[in-house]
Amino acid sequence: MAKDWKSEATHLDKRMAALFKAAPKPMQGFQSLMGAASASGQLDTKTKELMALAIAITQHCEGCITFHTRQAIGHGASREECAEAIAVAVEMGGGPAVVYGAQALEAYDDLSS
Amino acid sequence: MAKDWKSEATHLDKRMAALFKAAPKPMQGFQSLMGAASASGQLDTKTKELMALAIAITQHCEGCITFHTRQAIGHGASREECAEAIAVAVEMGGGPAVVYGAQALEAYDDLSS
Amino acid sequence: MAKDWKSEATHLDKRMAALFKAAPKPMQGFQSLMGAASASGQLDTKTKELMALAIAITQHCEGCITFHTRQAIGHGASREECAEAIAVAVEMGGGPAVVYGAQALEAYDDLSS
Amino acid sequence: MAKDWKSEATHLDKRMAALFKAAPKPMQGFQSLMGAASASGQLDTKTKELMALAIAITQHCEGCITFHTRQAIGHGASREECAEAIAVAVEMGGGPAVVYGAQALEAYDDLSS
Amino acid sequence: MAKDWKSEATHLDKRMAALFKAAPKPMQGFQSLMGAASASGQLDTKTKELMALAIAITQHCEGCITFHTRQAIGHGASREECAEAIAVAVEMGGGPAVVYGAQALEAYDDLSS
Amino acid sequence: MAKDWKSEATHLDKRMAALFKAAPKPMQGFQSLMGAASASGQLDTKTKELMALAIAITQHCEGCITFHTRQAIGHGASREECAEAIAVAVEMGGGPAVVYGAQALEAYDDLSS
Repeated sequence: MAKDWKSEATHLDKRMAALFKAAPKPMQGFQSLMGAASASGQLDTKTKELMALAIAITQHCEGCITFHTRQAIGHGASREECAEAIAVAVEMGGGPAVVYGAQALEAYDDLSS
Repeated sequence: MAKDWKSEATHLDKRMAALFKAAPKPMQGFQSLMGAASASGQLDTKTKELMALAIAITQHCEGCITFHTRQAIGHGASREECAEAIAVAVEMGGGPAVVYGAQALEAYDDLSS
Repeated sequence: MAKDWKSEATHLDKRMAALFKAAPKPMQGFQSLMGAASASGQLDTKTKELMALAIAITQHCEGCITFHTRQAIGHGASREECAEAIAVAVEMGGGPAVVYGAQALEAYDDLSS
Repeated sequence: MAKDWKSEATHLDKRMAALFKAAPKPMQGFQSLMGAASASGQLDTKTKELMALAIAITQHCEGCITFHTRQAIGHGASREECAEAIAVAVEMGGGPAVVYGAQALEAYDDLSS
Repeated sequence: MAKDWKSEATHLDKRMAALFKAAPKPMQGFQSLMGAASASGQLDTKTKELMALAIAITQHCEGCITFHTRQAIGHGASREECAEAIAVAVEMGGGPAVVYGAQALEAYDDLSS
Repeated sequence: MAKDWKSEATHLDKRMAALFKAAPKPMQGFQSLMGAASASGQLDTKTKELMALAIAITQHCEGCITFHTRQAIGHGASREECAEAIAVAVEMGGGPAVVYGAQALEAYDDLSS
């Protein structure tokens, strides 16, 4: 059956909050990195989130797919843009990227509804 | 509890069909690649599917394990051949390959029953 | 919802036992390797299990997180030590290690309770 | 000393040509996939090449860094855009992405000169 | 320029011998694992070495490509069989597998000459 | 021939300095993360550097092996401790970790001389 990506996202937030509390200094460093890396610059945040999503797919990281699909949606990424980012991931990741890319598309449909 | 690999396979097929519809041209390219790579040649398709399964195990890709275990079974791979492919994956992937290899064996038993 | 790491661990043990039975010789080799690698030497077993856990996080291997968190707890690793190992994994693995590190912390809390 | 990325690129082309000759059908499938995945659509080719570069960095693939840096330059990517793609890779890949990202920047400077 | 795979292989042997001396017990475990995993059974050693080579390509491990190409040649693998194993790796690993697969073919030509 | 790890380290430093200059904000975030993750706490810095080294080996990242071997040496890690960290990496990474672990040992011998 299809995964419930919304409750997945909610649980991920809770888990990450617990980690931030357990390791505050390293996690603050990570947050600075993430904030600076995804800030709008020569490339806008939407593009960077699609980039992070494509990496997440090739990294086989379901939680990251949840996180960055939600971020991409929040910054206005369309389903078509998402599908094109998935295609780049498939070019760079082969069969496993098809599997995780198909999850990303399902996540997009669920999290944007 | 043991995973229900058959319904996993069914859902994977559905998810991948959605991705093929969303990104038809890249996915046609991938299908040509997959078709040509797994076609019987100097090595037969069964061997190639076991090879893909061994890679899937070292890639930590559960969906790929589902897919290629089913393919290997469809091309006549025995449980013993499957176990030997898993062993090569363990040689090349260490502990994580034990974990995913053990899933592959469970998938074999479920999908071949 | 939070994962039930205890039943996850139980099922993992069962799955791995099936693999040991299906491929006894390679698995005996793996067990010798694992036994020798985790034996107390210049570094003690607790430290080595935390090291294996940090690797498991960067490898995105949930079953390995289950296994090595349980081992680390069994050798007396505290929650704080576990959080510090997770932080090293985040340094070496970025965002995906945050996701899997957060799982490891949840696993610690569940398996040590 | 700094790597000579131009001669690296030349040798890569030669090696890949040999592979295309040895396995023409799978490689034609891969080329269709790559062509379709990098074609301009909702996202333009420059953006897609930067995306592929970011993935290459997190995949620790030096030849891919060579290839996609050259492609990104060919489609007009600036050094600043390249640096931002590297930053996303570091967010998603941690320390190893710093190492390979630093290679990508050196490759950019060499291949664009 | 083309890599000198023969001297690469020689240096790899020397490096690994040093590791076996520095960590004899874990390395004996690994050797038992490798010996059992590659022993002829339902699948013959040549096939298993090609499988290990395909995994090495998707793992982006140049030393492993050197090692398992040499082993595959030693067990009678033809250039065509090698190219077919590379194609399976490309199916499962995308662009990076093209890069490392092209290295494997070069290694085959060098090590078999 | 054996690699010259000292000049490797020098060039790595230069490359990373260029990246820090090109992407100052994300790199400052990464530095905060790295500083906090490797700071002495429940586990001391030497142990954390050996942990990072073990991860670097399983990540197949030669530059990271250079970096963290040097760090581990700087914090007093002995060759025996290094060999034990390599063994944990082999347990968790199989054959490719043997290859990269053997590099780490060579790096230790070169960088500590």
